[in-house]
Amino acid sequence: MRTTNLLMPTLREDPADAEIASHQLMLRAGYIRRLAAGLYTWMPLGLRVLRRVEQVVREEMDRAGAQEVLMPAIQPAELWEESGRWDQYGPELLRLRDRHERDFCYGPTHEEVITDLVRNEVASYRQLPLNLYQVQTKFRDEVRPRFGIMRAREFLMKDAYSFHLEQESLEATYQAMHDAYCRIFQRLGLDFRPVEADTGAIGGHTSHEFHVLAESGEDAIAFSDGGEYAANVELAEAVAEGERPAPAEELRTVETPGMKTIADLVTNHGIPVERTVKTLLVRGAEGGLVALMVRGDHELNEVKAEKLPAVAEPLTMAEEADIRAAAGAGPGSLGPVGLEVPIIVDHAVAALADFTAGANRDGEHLFGINWGRDLPEPETADLRNVVAGDPSPAGDGRLQIRRGIEVGHIFQLGSKYSEALGATVLDEEGRQRTLTMGCYGIGVSRVVAAAIEQNHDERGIAWPDELAPFRVALCPIQPGRNAEVAETAERLYRELSEAGVEVLLDDRGERPGVMFADMELIGIPHRVTIGGKGLERGVVEYQSRSGEAAGEIPLAEATGTLLERLGA
Amino acid sequence: MRTTNLLMPTLREDPADAEIASHQLMLRAGYIRRLAAGLYTWMPLGLRVLRRVEQVVREEMDRAGAQEVLMPAIQPAELWEESGRWDQYGPELLRLRDRHERDFCYGPTHEEVITDLVRNEVASYRQLPLNLYQVQTKFRDEVRPRFGIMRAREFLMKDAYSFHLEQESLEATYQAMHDAYCRIFQRLGLDFRPVEADTGAIGGHTSHEFHVLAESGEDAIAFSDGGEYAANVELAEAVAEGERPAPAEELRTVETPGMKTIADLVTNHGIPVERTVKTLLVRGAEGGLVALMVRGDHELNEVKAEKLPAVAEPLTMAEEADIRAAAGAGPGSLGPVGLEVPIIVDHAVAALADFTAGANRDGEHLFGINWGRDLPEPETADLRNVVAGDPSPAGDGRLQIRRGIEVGHIFQLGSKYSEALGATVLDEEGRQRTLTMGCYGIGVSRVVAAAIEQNHDERGIAWPDELAPFRVALCPIQPGRNAEVAETAERLYRELSEAGVEVLLDDRGERPGVMFADMELIGIPHRVTIGGKGLERGVVEYQSRSGEAAGEIPLAEATGTLLERLGA
Repeated sequence: MRTTNLLMPTLREDPADAEIASHQLMLRAGYIRRLAAGLYTWMPLGLRVLRRVEQVVREEMDRAGAQEVLMPAIQPAELWEESGRWDQYGPELLRLRDRHERDFCYGPTHEEVITDLVRNEVASYRQLPLNLYQVQTKFRDEVRPRFGIMRAREFLMKDAYSFHLEQESLEATYQAMHDAYCRIFQRLGLDFRPVEADTGAIGGHTSHEFHVLAESGEDAIAFSDGGEYAANVELAEAVAEGERPAPAEELRTVETPGMKTIADLVTNHGIPVERTVKTLLVRGAEGGLVALMVRGDHELNEVKAEKLPAVAEPLTMAEEADIRAAAGAGPGSLGPVGLEVPIIVDHAVAALADFTAGANRDGEHLFGINWGRDLPEPETADLRNVVAGDPSPAGDGRLQIRRGIEVGHIFQLGSKYSEALGATVLDEEGRQRTLTMGCYGIGVSRVVAAAIEQNHDERGIAWPDELAPFRVALCPIQPGRNAEVAETAERLYRELSEAGVEVLLDDRGERPGVMFADMELIGIPHRVTIGGKGLERGVVEYQSRSGEAAGEIPLAEATGTLLERLGA
Repeated sequence: MRTTNLLMPTLREDPADAEIASHQLMLRAGYIRRLAAGLYTWMPLGLRVLRRVEQVVREEMDRAGAQEVLMPAIQPAELWEESGRWDQYGPELLRLRDRHERDFCYGPTHEEVITDLVRNEVASYRQLPLNLYQVQTKFRDEVRPRFGIMRAREFLMKDAYSFHLEQESLEATYQAMHDAYCRIFQRLGLDFRPVEADTGAIGGHTSHEFHVLAESGEDAIAFSDGGEYAANVELAEAVAEGERPAPAEELRTVETPGMKTIADLVTNHGIPVERTVKTLLVRGAEGGLVALMVRGDHELNEVKAEKLPAVAEPLTMAEEADIRAAAGAGPGSLGPVGLEVPIIVDHAVAALADFTAGANRDGEHLFGINWGRDLPEPETADLRNVVAGDPSPAGDGRLQIRRGIEVGHIFQLGSKYSEALGATVLDEEGRQRTLTMGCYGIGVSRVVAAAIEQNHDERGIAWPDELAPFRVALCPIQPGRNAEVAETAERLYRELSEAGVEVLLDDRGERPGVMFADMELIGIPHRVTIGGKGLERGVVEYQSRSGEAAGEIPLAEATGTLLERLGA
């Protein structure tokens, strides 16, 4: 394509309201334009990238034996009432009424519709397993849509749903989807991790998230430096490690007026943060309070804490008045010695000797506390988020922590929807059996934004080849004044296009600086500059967007050399 | 693909509520399933056909220089208020409110959104002409959705919008779209006609509809047997033809008690219907009534009648009481003689001699009426629908009338939206100028239904090759009992697939009758049957769905012969 035929309204300045790189760059590079809050038009360049993602997703879903269907975006309320979600779902569900005053919603997900289809069309075990997917526009009425298409209200999603009689069959399809997702993100050239995930509100048994690694990611994920293990930090087990040293210090009380944080203690008393503890009082399952203790440099993991039988669900921090009544001091001066509520401590706290905690008297701390000497041996549990350097729970190395953007999620759903909607089939013995289900999503439009978060620099987007809207940019210098430049650019354009390479010829007649800036902003991986001076010496100039390769190419071999470099 | 991996729930019986062939067959062949009124799920087979249409549309739009974008389905009310359509549009517009109580609609069309985009992004004549399209799910809240996807509420549409400074540029793009549409429907293997159309409520200057010819079509279209002329019957000009003969009969009054229709007169008095006339009283533009006359065998064309300056708009038939007051008789006994309201007659009526009309007295008709003798020479106009055999207005032959299904529509819109939304650019002289627009639609999902209306028989769908979900069906006879049959089917499946042909292998182990019935129902164009007896003689059996070709193919040459036949 020629830039003169392409609506590519690039901007020099970062738009004021865009907070993250992908949002800024998609606006600046003319990939998207905002219509209203959370609603975006995909411009020609952006849509080309979106379609590439869609295409790879489709190919790999087909290859994995899934069948593509297309369900309506607008869904009748009756089905959501059958599943119970019409009442459970909050205002994210865009509800609407048709001209006959019947209730519908713009589907954020299609479990009900697909389960309805399958209960009507599938009657026998012989039709199973069945895996149906669609690539479809969905709507979630986010209260505060932000980050551009990363969290838009209208978005493109691939959702798949599988149906089985037996758990083993579900597990086989689940594994096939896991593998297909890995191939998809590999083919797209992304640095990603499949991680074990909490099944949360959707329920079900097993679940993996697929994260594109990027510093701006909203999720923290932990993965082993020596093996396959990876999990959302919410879920990763903090493994107990190391023997507790013998006590070396006497227990003593230290005046700590006004010091309410770990940082205060560490700064003012020069003690290592790894020998401080935080004591947190939460509501107990049986009423009253429970104390949870983690090391001063660790964070309480609320998902883990909430799963403790002694702790009330949902996890609720105690009010200050209740804390004072139970401990005799405020939240900044709590500690285990003399505390008359049940205490559960993280494994890392149980491994401490000579540690520091609040004295349960405002303005005082105890130093040199030791379990078994100053206190009974504690009840222990995994209470904290893992940190970098922790042992991998799989025993295959040490954990690293990275930020990730969730772009895919697969679930073993079980029978939640098939039971609610009565989706059954006859098994080999002629018995009516409720189906078991899996569901598998990829945020197709979100992948585009996540890829940019991972692949950009101060000059703009730097696409992996598979995702680029065009693979090669041709930049002729002053073609209007030099016929040889113009003809050479046209010839390369023709030859590369005929070889199946998607080429963007910058024929706007702009100065080199403008051309280069635009091609770098929109992220074309390979750039060829055709200039009069180069041509006099029989060369054109090559530059890769990644910066890895640059240099002159003899004109006579230009097309061949480029095709080789592109692997085309 | 193998049928055991394909969700293909074929039905033996016609569904009770499906009125037209495409609706019946799409349900029976497992192409679609109904979710709610006017909402359908595209099943795997149906979606494959839909995607083929989409692909051809996209290729030809790109080839014609249009750029693909994707706008949100959900549109803010503010833009529709700017264009005035928020109030003009009826209940077909699905209106909704988001969680912040802001008004939106699910777009049935995107003139407002695209004009808003262009007014923001296009500032100079140098960026013109611009032609942007999308393939997108749209919604029209039909009061009575029917005919399956032919008139569904949620449907897939290709809509394009072009922007220009000058009318010549609009005309050039309009012609390019006209040509692209012809290529699209040709490539899809459909018998279609582009026809001149009324611009109707959308306004603007020039408009063409694209009709797939089929007896079940809702529109009547007229086209020349000797040239290019084609027009919607609503618009086709009825050309005056033939000299009026000299009077041969006396004017006489005939008693016609109870005869109120032309058919009554013709049956009871043996007069040719071509010498009867119908007299219709309508409201006049200046108040009072106006008489319109067409021949007894012709139909009043209301679009043409409404355009007469003397006639009130909208066209309104007179009430019986007003007719009696003006003519002294009821609607079944009206005629021109002695009628004291302005009379406008169709050209064919003006060419009559010795004709019959009501006497303006109940129960009496006049026979042998002649213009210029019994009445003054009449004021004439084109008032009727054309009929088969009429001369083509283009002078290139005689008209035929066929039924058509509208699948595409192109408009020269003019400045309706660009004026309302203030979409202007600077021209070469630096003056602010309002854009002129074209719009170009194809009902992508409707094309699938229209193609079936045109291509089916009593056994099912008979796809043109380009539209078929699979081009070849392989039907092995009892492969479970004959290893050679099974192996041969597998080999052909592999060889054809590797040659890029989409093949459906019926591996269900069903009886031949069931296999053949299903493959004919779903419409696969080419069928190859592999049977033990044939293999003993070294042949397989070929059958084309169209019935045009059938016969044995030597097994050794089977793949080659098939590829040749497919042009692959």
